[in-house]
Amino acid sequence: MFYLPNTMANWPWPRRINPFFEQVKVEADEWFRSFNALSPKSLKAFEKCDFAEHLRIACDLMIVYFVVDEYTDVEDAERTAEIVNIIIDTLNNPYRSRPEGESILGEVIRQFWSRAIRSASPTSQRHFLDDYITYLRAVIVEAGDRDKNVTRDIQGYLSIRRRTVGAQSAFAIFEFDLNLVDEVYYHPAVTELIDCVAELVLIDNDLASYNREQGTGDENHNLVTAIMFELGLDRSGAMSWAAAYHAEIEAKFINGLLKLPSWGATLDAQIKQYLNGIANWARANYCWSYEGQRYFGNRGGEIEKTRLVPLLSKARRDPNMREQNIVVADLWL
Amino acid sequence: MFYLPNTMANWPWPRRINPFFEQVKVEADEWFRSFNALSPKSLKAFEKCDFAEHLRIACDLMIVYFVVDEYTDVEDAERTAEIVNIIIDTLNNPYRSRPEGESILGEVIRQFWSRAIRSASPTSQRHFLDDYITYLRAVIVEAGDRDKNVTRDIQGYLSIRRRTVGAQSAFAIFEFDLNLVDEVYYHPAVTELIDCVAELVLIDNDLASYNREQGTGDENHNLVTAIMFELGLDRSGAMSWAAAYHAEIEAKFINGLLKLPSWGATLDAQIKQYLNGIANWARANYCWSYEGQRYFGNRGGEIEKTRLVPLLSKARRDPNMREQNIVVADLWL
Repeated sequence: MFYLPNTMANWPWPRRINPFFEQVKVEADEWFRSFNALSPKSLKAFEKCDFAEHLRIACDLMIVYFVVDEYTDVEDAERTAEIVNIIIDTLNNPYRSRPEGESILGEVIRQFWSRAIRSASPTSQRHFLDDYITYLRAVIVEAGDRDKNVTRDIQGYLSIRRRTVGAQSAFAIFEFDLNLVDEVYYHPAVTELIDCVAELVLIDNDLASYNREQGTGDENHNLVTAIMFELGLDRSGAMSWAAAYHAEIEAKFINGLLKLPSWGATLDAQIKQYLNGIANWARANYCWSYEGQRYFGNRGGEIEKTRLVPLLSKARRDPNMREQNIVVADLWL
Repeated sequence: MFYLPNTMANWPWPRRINPFFEQVKVEADEWFRSFNALSPKSLKAFEKCDFAEHLRIACDLMIVYFVVDEYTDVEDAERTAEIVNIIIDTLNNPYRSRPEGESILGEVIRQFWSRAIRSASPTSQRHFLDDYITYLRAVIVEAGDRDKNVTRDIQGYLSIRRRTVGAQSAFAIFEFDLNLVDEVYYHPAVTELIDCVAELVLIDNDLASYNREQGTGDENHNLVTAIMFELGLDRSGAMSWAAAYHAEIEAKFINGLLKLPSWGATLDAQIKQYLNGIANWARANYCWSYEGQRYFGNRGGEIEKTRLVPLLSKARRDPNMREQNIVVADLWL
C-alpha cells in the first residue's frame, strides 16, 4: 500500500465541464471508432477514458495523444522513430493521402490535422507543430531509455519528461482562436508559466500512473522512480517529495502570473485567456486521472478520498505485445 | 530515507517567543540543576532542549515532563506504577518533605507544585491535577504495552496516546491566571477543542520522535507504527496519512472555534485567551521538535527544510539501562 498525496488541494482553478462536452465527445468518438485502430480490448480501455473537455478539435487531439502513446509505449527506439517519422510527414502534408500499408496512425493524424488547420489560427498552428515535434522526438529518447533500462536522476528525468508529457503542444487548444504572436508566446515570462503547468501535469500524471507503470515494468520513465533512485526514499516518501515539488511549482506559477509584463490591451487579454486555459488544464488533467479509468479502474473516486493505493502486482512485460495486437492499456482490464 | 511532512504549513498561529523567556529559562534551569537528577550525559541532552516559552511555572512543568518521561521510558509497568504513586502522593501533599531514599522525582515534583499553587488559580489547580493524574495512569498502560510488545491499531493507539501525550495537563499553564469554571472547562464544545490540540501535538510529536524511537526500539508507542500496522502503508506513507489526519483535526479546531457558545463577556474573554494559548502551544510544540535537539540533533533546521530524514540504525535496547544510570536521551548523543 502506498499513499498518493492530494497535489491539487490548493490550486485556484476548480473542476469545470465544458457545456458542449457531451455533444462533441460523441462526434469525436465516432470519428475515432471509424479507424478500428485499437484491438477490441484496447478499444474497451479507450472507451473507459472520458477524454477531457473543450471542443471537437481538442477531443481529437486527446485521441491522438492516447493512440500515439499506446503505439509507442510498447516499441523500441528504432520502431518508435519510424512511427514518429510517419507522424511528422503527415503533419507536413495533411492533404496528401497516406501510402498503402502504412500504420493507421498516419491517417488518424492526417484527418485530425487537416480538420484542425481549417479553424486554428496560423500562429497556433506553428506553435503546435514546434511543440508537438519536440514531444515526438522526446518519445524516441524515452523508448531508447526503455531499451537500455536507464534510470535517470531527478533533473535528468525532468529534462526529458517535460517534453514527453506533451503538455505544451496540447496547450495549443487554448490558442486556436487567438493570435498569440511569437513576441508574447516565446517571452521568457510566458515560457516559464507554460513550463510550470507542464511540470504540474507531468507530476500529477506520474503520480497517478506510477502504479500501473510499475505493474507493467514501465516505471523507469516516472518521476517517483527518479526520486527513489536519487534520494533513497521509500515509495510514499518519493510521492510526498513530488507533491512538495508540485506545491513549489504552483507558487512559482501564481507568482509569475502576478508579475507578467504588458503588451497592450489586446495581447494582454489574449495571453490572459491562454494562461487561464492552461491553468485549468492542470486541474482537468488531475481530475481525469481519477475520473477516467485508465489509472485506477473504477476505484478512482475512492482513491481520491482515501489516498490509499494497493500496489499492483507486476505483470511480466512481453516484448512481442505489438505483434500480438496487445497494447499496454489491455493489462489494466 | 523517509519523508517527514510539513504538518503546520497552514496553522494560523505563528511562531512567537515569550519576551521573558531568556530570563525565566535561566532561573528554571538553575533550579533543576540543583537536584542532580540526571546523569552527566543526560544532563547534556537536557541542556540541548530549550524548554518552550512562558513563565517560570511553565518552564518548571516542562522540566517535570522531561524528567518523568526519562525515568519512566526505561521502566516496566510495575516500576512505572511505583514512580506514579510517588508523584501522586507528592501532588497531594506538596508541603510534606519526601521520605529518605525516595527517587529524586518526588522532591522535584514537590518543589514544582508547591511553587505553582502559590500563584495558580484554584480552578486551574484542580484541572491540572485531574489531567496530570490521567496522564500518569496512561503512562503505566504505555509501560505495560511495552512490556508485552503490544502493537495497537490506529483507534486503539490514539485512545491511549491522547492521554500519554500529557498535552491537556500542560495546557493548565494557560489557565493559571484565569478562573475557568467547570461549566466552561468541561463543556463538550471546549473539551472537543482541547482534544483537537492534544491530537495535533501527539501527531507532531510522534512524527518528529519516530526516528529516534525506532532506533531505540520504542516505536510501538507511535502513531506511525499503528498506521503502518493497520493500513499496510510504507513508512513515509504512514507519515503522509498522519499529516492528512492532522489537517482534518486542524479544520475541526478552526471550525469548532467559530461555533463556540457564549457564557457572557467575562468567561468568553477567558476561554478565548485559553484557547488561543493552546492553539499557540500546537505551533510551539512543532517548532520545539525541530529547534530543540532531542529528535534531530543539530540537523533540525535542515530537516525542516528538506523534509528528508535518514533512518537511524537500531541501537540494541538494554533493559538494565536504569541500573547503569543511562536514560533514553543518552542514546541520541
